[in-house]
Amino acid sequence: MIKAYAAQSADSPLEAFEYDPGPLGNEDVELEVTSCGICHSDLSVLKNEWGFTKYPVVPGHEVIGIVREIGSGVTRVKVGDTVGLGWFSRSCMTCSQCMSGDHNMCAKSEGTIVGRHGGFADRVRSHEAWAVPIPAGLDAMKAGPLFCGGLTVFNPIVQFNVQPTDRVGVIGIGGLGHLALQFLRAWGCHVTAFTSSESKMEEAQSLGAHEAINSKDPKALRRAAGRFDFIISTVNVSLDWNAYLGCLAPRGRLHHVGAVLEPLGVSVFSMMPKQASVSSSPLGSPATAAMMLEFCERHDIAPVVEVFPVAKINEAIAHLESGKARYRVVLDMKA
Amino acid sequence: MIKAYAAQSADSPLEAFEYDPGPLGNEDVELEVTSCGICHSDLSVLKNEWGFTKYPVVPGHEVIGIVREIGSGVTRVKVGDTVGLGWFSRSCMTCSQCMSGDHNMCAKSEGTIVGRHGGFADRVRSHEAWAVPIPAGLDAMKAGPLFCGGLTVFNPIVQFNVQPTDRVGVIGIGGLGHLALQFLRAWGCHVTAFTSSESKMEEAQSLGAHEAINSKDPKALRRAAGRFDFIISTVNVSLDWNAYLGCLAPRGRLHHVGAVLEPLGVSVFSMMPKQASVSSSPLGSPATAAMMLEFCERHDIAPVVEVFPVAKINEAIAHLESGKARYRVVLDMKA
Repeated sequence: MIKAYAAQSADSPLEAFEYDPGPLGNEDVELEVTSCGICHSDLSVLKNEWGFTKYPVVPGHEVIGIVREIGSGVTRVKVGDTVGLGWFSRSCMTCSQCMSGDHNMCAKSEGTIVGRHGGFADRVRSHEAWAVPIPAGLDAMKAGPLFCGGLTVFNPIVQFNVQPTDRVGVIGIGGLGHLALQFLRAWGCHVTAFTSSESKMEEAQSLGAHEAINSKDPKALRRAAGRFDFIISTVNVSLDWNAYLGCLAPRGRLHHVGAVLEPLGVSVFSMMPKQASVSSSPLGSPATAAMMLEFCERHDIAPVVEVFPVAKINEAIAHLESGKARYRVVLDMKA
Repeated sequence: MIKAYAAQSADSPLEAFEYDPGPLGNEDVELEVTSCGICHSDLSVLKNEWGFTKYPVVPGHEVIGIVREIGSGVTRVKVGDTVGLGWFSRSCMTCSQCMSGDHNMCAKSEGTIVGRHGGFADRVRSHEAWAVPIPAGLDAMKAGPLFCGGLTVFNPIVQFNVQPTDRVGVIGIGGLGHLALQFLRAWGCHVTAFTSSESKMEEAQSLGAHEAINSKDPKALRRAAGRFDFIISTVNVSLDWNAYLGCLAPRGRLHHVGAVLEPLGVSVFSMMPKQASVSSSPLGSPATAAMMLEFCERHDIAPVVEVFPVAKINEAIAHLESGKARYRVVLDMKA
């Protein structure tokens, strides 16, 4: 039996819960969870904000663990390896997307906490493809948030060929944005943080930003007109996106990884003269995750985390909900 | 004096008009106009729909002409060359965009019919950079519309690296769309036309489309879900753009060259799972225009035109306004 923490309804706390995972699939692995980040998506699933939650639900999709069991066909990892597991736990491996290395866009992909149980547990399972080995030089206790928050912002940097010569912007300096700043600084870019928080304007610079701009100041945005090759937005609230399009240089891109619910309101005339693009992307593939981990090791990049012992799991969630986390919350499953 | 056709106000017909172009600039050329396409943008400027028209206005920015005079510094063309002149007639040549080959995104670019007089005339001038030589194998009488309608749709095919292996769609089969179909067929793509006109569904196939889909049929759009790598929209009316995003394959792009006035209403959730992009682009550079002309010569691509003698210029404009032009209207300035 796997010993987990589950919520029984949208307004229940997490409580001890056991389930039988059944026999291990041939290509599957079982991890002993050592730590697990808490992501805003865990809150959304806990509260059924996206409408697909089935209770009881065990959240947790920023898992670090040690491989303890492997199926008979597993070749990618071995027992004893320290690996990470993120939003996806499985993909079909044979569709056009999987065969092209885009396992993250497989139409049959399985979410680690969607219709199955996640990483707030002593053990968790996944297909071997999604268990990504952690390089020895990374601090495993901090690495969990790389598998969702980190990969979400690293993936578009790779996919859209952001260049070291680019001038880039990051909108929203939180769990995702604080990692985007670090990645882009190490990438060689000129990095600007857009934030509405005075205190974060300074913090952003310590995280790698060359400068910070008040994201809600129309005059500041007008002064930044035409400057940016790539702007990544990590916020899930509606901003004046046409004003941000105005900040783009020719051929620029405004990329959304924040889950804005309202239509973006962008106009053709904001994009046409400068050949601008607006886009969004999902989590990255396992290959991109491995690339990210190697890049983090090389450049000493890590999430800034606050660690809670798993016994304080509900306090940890409340802390994340309060908006005061700097910047990611991690559960120490062994504390 | 240059003998032209000008409108004195938004509701005036075009009438004979003379103006003195002054001394020829060192890097400028003067063309004897042999033919000139009529573009919807000419109508918009005639009627001051974009608010910047100064009367009297001489439209015409799909010019074919013979170089008759050149400034002392001109090296790119010589007297006697047949050249084309499109939406732009000048750029600064020294800004970052011009120096990168993106003269079309020069912030100081000059429009052929914006604050100066265009090609509905016996002569017209431009900077030498924007007078693009016509290959010998092209029919000069048909080539004018390539310089605005053609370049508008050819440019994004180049800029966004459309591949011969791509499955592509063209929304709107008119002056721009009928050229996009021809370009994309010759590019090697699988080409689908989206049109609301029954009669154009058949015509589209004769122009290069492998198939045609009713652009206003939600069921047909749902059947096309996930199929397209690149969709170019040439229409200036609002369609259900999220439905078209649904038609994109992973990594797909929905590109607008039609001047839709309303916000697009696209949502992050329509783009995120498949890493989709939405974009727009202006006319292409002179280098891209030259590439287009060579491609047209190689593949026997030409606008489908209806030619009017210049004496019937107001009838020609009325025909374009009626929406019945198949597909571009050209004035024969020598008839």
